[in-house]
Amino acid sequence: MTLVTDRIIATYLLSRPAAEAARAARLVAIEQTVEVPESLITPDIESRVVGKVLSVDAVGPELHRARISYDAALSGFELPRLLNLVYGNVSIQNGIRLVDLEIPESFLARFKGPNFGIGGLRRLLKVHGRPLLATALKPNGASTEEFERLAGDFARGGGDLLKDDQNLCDADLAAFAERVRRVQAAVSEANAKTGRNALYCPILCGPADELEARVAAVLGAGCAGVLAPPFLLGLDTVRMLAAKHGLLVMAHPSFTGTFFSDRSHGMTPGLLLGTLFRLAGCDVSIFPNPGGRFGFTKEECADLSARLTGPLGCLAPSFPAPAGGMTFENLPEMARDYGTDSVFLVGGGLLAHSKSVYDGTRAFLDSIEGLVR
Amino acid sequence: MTLVTDRIIATYLLSRPAAEAARAARLVAIEQTVEVPESLITPDIESRVVGKVLSVDAVGPELHRARISYDAALSGFELPRLLNLVYGNVSIQNGIRLVDLEIPESFLARFKGPNFGIGGLRRLLKVHGRPLLATALKPNGASTEEFERLAGDFARGGGDLLKDDQNLCDADLAAFAERVRRVQAAVSEANAKTGRNALYCPILCGPADELEARVAAVLGAGCAGVLAPPFLLGLDTVRMLAAKHGLLVMAHPSFTGTFFSDRSHGMTPGLLLGTLFRLAGCDVSIFPNPGGRFGFTKEECADLSARLTGPLGCLAPSFPAPAGGMTFENLPEMARDYGTDSVFLVGGGLLAHSKSVYDGTRAFLDSIEGLVR
Repeated sequence: MTLVTDRIIATYLLSRPAAEAARAARLVAIEQTVEVPESLITPDIESRVVGKVLSVDAVGPELHRARISYDAALSGFELPRLLNLVYGNVSIQNGIRLVDLEIPESFLARFKGPNFGIGGLRRLLKVHGRPLLATALKPNGASTEEFERLAGDFARGGGDLLKDDQNLCDADLAAFAERVRRVQAAVSEANAKTGRNALYCPILCGPADELEARVAAVLGAGCAGVLAPPFLLGLDTVRMLAAKHGLLVMAHPSFTGTFFSDRSHGMTPGLLLGTLFRLAGCDVSIFPNPGGRFGFTKEECADLSARLTGPLGCLAPSFPAPAGGMTFENLPEMARDYGTDSVFLVGGGLLAHSKSVYDGTRAFLDSIEGLVR
Repeated sequence: MTLVTDRIIATYLLSRPAAEAARAARLVAIEQTVEVPESLITPDIESRVVGKVLSVDAVGPELHRARISYDAALSGFELPRLLNLVYGNVSIQNGIRLVDLEIPESFLARFKGPNFGIGGLRRLLKVHGRPLLATALKPNGASTEEFERLAGDFARGGGDLLKDDQNLCDADLAAFAERVRRVQAAVSEANAKTGRNALYCPILCGPADELEARVAAVLGAGCAGVLAPPFLLGLDTVRMLAAKHGLLVMAHPSFTGTFFSDRSHGMTPGLLLGTLFRLAGCDVSIFPNPGGRFGFTKEECADLSARLTGPLGCLAPSFPAPAGGMTFENLPEMARDYGTDSVFLVGGGLLAHSKSVYDGTRAFLDSIEGLVR
């Protein structure tokens, strides 16, 4: 009996010469599915379970592209097993880079995706036709009074999205709840004056057994969502909390970087911070823009942006949020690179721009509006 | 007012020449704590929050060792924030490898550590004075009848620890519970005959909202614990479940490998699979032995083993479990390298060794007992 099943197709770049490429692809297909010596693979297991090498093509003398298809059932139609299936064990080997995933509708249909996405977040903010402006509460160590002032100035100045710096660390859950309440109150007060609806996303990070209580504090304060670091909390933990509570999720890339630093191994930023974060329900994916303190290339960021905004089953598109050492001078280039449907996340560059955060926010917004006119 | 606080000291290897090393160390200290331009750091924030560069020493012409101390309060005394503090943002940069962590007692004291550890697991098994023998239920795709037979043969042959292959994927939670029940029954039946107490650890992997139900199924079947992949589930999710349910945890390194593949970036295997997994309560840490299908060196494995078994506050020591393509011929070398307090995890090599798994297990155990006599 042959069952027709859905397949997940993974594309890897293998740093192997022509003489070894086909064998290397076969070894990936075995490693990721049955993990036994070839001699123990029966014809039945071979046909039902082992990954199938669809093609191996030369990209360069020492580089080959291998497409391998896996029975989608081996993923359990869930994220932790998908990660294991396409990159679990081979992550510990070398020269195997995952560059694409084709995910069947049977898998995608189990996922709720971003609760808001680009359209939903725009409706919430009532901002259309221009990139969004976001900033962060910094620096870590400032007082709640200073954060209230910063939040209020940013919201009064016309800013859209305010988030905690991902390194903010309150003394405990009660201190977190109190700070979030006060910052959100400052944003709400500014919104009442402007008639706008600037949003505040506090950091969601902490012990696994405290995350529900932190989400309750955030929602209790009237915030729409959180800044969540999926690789600190677990990618599927973020998906679960977002789906359960209808959260707006801005995703932070903390602790993901070893997937990108070695271009012959790991994953592309687009696949991890784009496809996988969107699958986990992230409405906004923050990533380092080229030219700042981090090393992503323009091509990598364009691919990431395309994966966040392009088709992915019925999942809503997510906002790309380039960040990381951006300044006023970068705005025209960012507008060219990312277009209207993007979030410009400017932290220190906005704080340092003018005498006041209000003035800085106004200046950045004027520039952004000028760029899309 | 100056508060005396505990410090976490992180040691990084920076791939930078002498002229840039001190500045690079300072930038790490800023990036990991306040993430703002130098001009925005007030003297107060500098003294209270910014990481302090303790030393920068040349290791080679293009390589420097930097020790940076962080206020332990910035870690929230919890794992997700510890990861963020010592390696969150700099993971996205290049040539910054985290090679050591000195963690103060104030942090360690919040952690329960392994529920069993080396001593507790030996008492449970009633096996002393020799390395433990472990194997995996494979290959993925075999029937439950075949797994029952494999489990029974291994336990009757004198094997100690049986685990699911980490890629096993049952159709759903009910199928998982049924398979676990049947395999544990086969092990229990064998134990009743031998008078021994071989243990079975099923895979704990699945959607975040299903993990509690899976743990309940495992404990309900009479198993002592699980095989858990911390980087698929979230490191602190594993800690939380282990602590809450008193689980025996065998940790699988799936999806961790990008931290190790580029030796100029990431972390050492010892720090991640040793120190951090032990902090998360893993009783056994599985890692690829040199000479198999993966690229860890002997020195890296020795460091990993030392971090699992050496002092770490009041935390119980954990078993190193070298694995990954090991065969009968490797046993003497493994015994030399890891000594008595180790778990030899042999999967395909044991299955392929003899006509029956019973005979194979007996042969491996005879060899292990001979090596420590």
